[in-house]
Amino acid sequence: MKVLSDPKKMQAYSQAFRSKGRSLGFVPTMGALHEGHLELVRASRRKDDVTLASIYVNPLQFGPKEDFKKYPRRLAADLGLLAELKVDAVYTPSNKGMYPEGFSTQVQVRGSLVRGLCAPYRPGHFDGVATVVVKLLGAALPTRLYLGQKDAQQVAVLKRVVGDLDMEVEVVACPTVREKDGLAMSSRNLRLSPRGRAIAPVLYRGLRAGRELARSGKSETGEVIAEIRRVLRTEKAIKLQYLEAVERDSLRPVKRVAPGSMIALAAHLENVRLIDNIIV
Amino acid sequence: MKVLSDPKKMQAYSQAFRSKGRSLGFVPTMGALHEGHLELVRASRRKDDVTLASIYVNPLQFGPKEDFKKYPRRLAADLGLLAELKVDAVYTPSNKGMYPEGFSTQVQVRGSLVRGLCAPYRPGHFDGVATVVVKLLGAALPTRLYLGQKDAQQVAVLKRVVGDLDMEVEVVACPTVREKDGLAMSSRNLRLSPRGRAIAPVLYRGLRAGRELARSGKSETGEVIAEIRRVLRTEKAIKLQYLEAVERDSLRPVKRVAPGSMIALAAHLENVRLIDNIIV
Repeated sequence: MKVLSDPKKMQAYSQAFRSKGRSLGFVPTMGALHEGHLELVRASRRKDDVTLASIYVNPLQFGPKEDFKKYPRRLAADLGLLAELKVDAVYTPSNKGMYPEGFSTQVQVRGSLVRGLCAPYRPGHFDGVATVVVKLLGAALPTRLYLGQKDAQQVAVLKRVVGDLDMEVEVVACPTVREKDGLAMSSRNLRLSPRGRAIAPVLYRGLRAGRELARSGKSETGEVIAEIRRVLRTEKAIKLQYLEAVERDSLRPVKRVAPGSMIALAAHLENVRLIDNIIV
Repeated sequence: MKVLSDPKKMQAYSQAFRSKGRSLGFVPTMGALHEGHLELVRASRRKDDVTLASIYVNPLQFGPKEDFKKYPRRLAADLGLLAELKVDAVYTPSNKGMYPEGFSTQVQVRGSLVRGLCAPYRPGHFDGVATVVVKLLGAALPTRLYLGQKDAQQVAVLKRVVGDLDMEVEVVACPTVREKDGLAMSSRNLRLSPRGRAIAPVLYRGLRAGRELARSGKSETGEVIAEIRRVLRTEKAIKLQYLEAVERDSLRPVKRVAPGSMIALAAHLENVRLIDNIIV
């Protein structure tokens, strides 16, 4: 497995395959890999001739009060996991390489996709995500970009950015991978205490209760949201940040939770910010 | 010569050559082609296996009070010129194709490159240029991007954007092409009256007088600028917008006009905005 830190070398590696007409799948990550990431790698391995991953904790997408410094880092273990899954090359750029002195360019996203959900609570976050992903795509030159549906707003934003900028890459969103008790896999789960870890599955239990109510016919958004809140209130340690029902692709709020709707939430638990969502 | 309006078809056209390892040169234009554009095409024809051009008057880079509507358009004549020069394919996207409803993404440039020269007088202009060029590169997938040095700030900004976003393309800046009397070729020259056209060469005469003074040893920026102003004042119809001496690549102001410096100006003449620059 090749490990490359220089964007020019990464491009040369990919271009050699592209000039032979091979397809390349790309899985961008911030490391601290879990089954969610590994499923993206497996999806690329099934579909593409060459599978690339990146490991880079992007400072641009963390707010000044966010957990950039606390974000888990364990490069050697991550590289071991990717090698086991027969990833062909891993791109591991440095901060200096990504944002050298004089760096002046930002990809900005505006409009309905960044009006609700995480966006108001994380100013600049999606611009940081868009900028780093456009850069990663520029270096990795993939045919397909694999993303996890857990980060639903990120998926919607990046589909838009890639389409808006006429970038020649197909975005593939893969289903959220969950622990047995329903908790969505996340690198941030590592930072929960055993007690917090036992509480966290209430988020998905709440989302499922909401979806069941909607499916039973009581689909008015206010009712569905109230039902989920009722479930979440059973755990005092859960500090809900937002809970919204939106249209799956446009992320516009819906009045009724119907097929094509998504219910999404963010909550703090032991100062760890967790997100989850469910498609109806 | 192929004429393509759809970005996916443009990508497929280019990808077919890239997958055979061929190099592609790309000349983006807003049409109303003149010798300056044609020299860019010839440079690409000499260096690259395949030469692409685009014709698109990008609304995003015109301010609300600028000359978007008045900008000269003559597609048929332009296509004829490009065919004569054996351009392989021309990309002619539509406004709806470029900026469909829901378009949400902008490439923004900040910092010293957009502090002086045209930037303060054309708010949003370079973001519009950066956004459209990133899109055009996404569709055309070239190996080399050919730009005219007449638009010096545009060249500096686009070199930065392409570098910052790790885009796999080499930016080639070609010397300004001038009329026999020294006037820099520009599509906007078409809008001058015969009288205005006779006056316009004073801009380059001024720049040359400044450069000569600097070369003679009187290189203090204030002196050089005063000399150029003196020349320009001989034509009352010239309304100078800015006149600056900067470092050629960073565009930072210089105290002395030395090798590597650039003197650049913008002026209105008969309500037509003309720019020019000279490298010392």
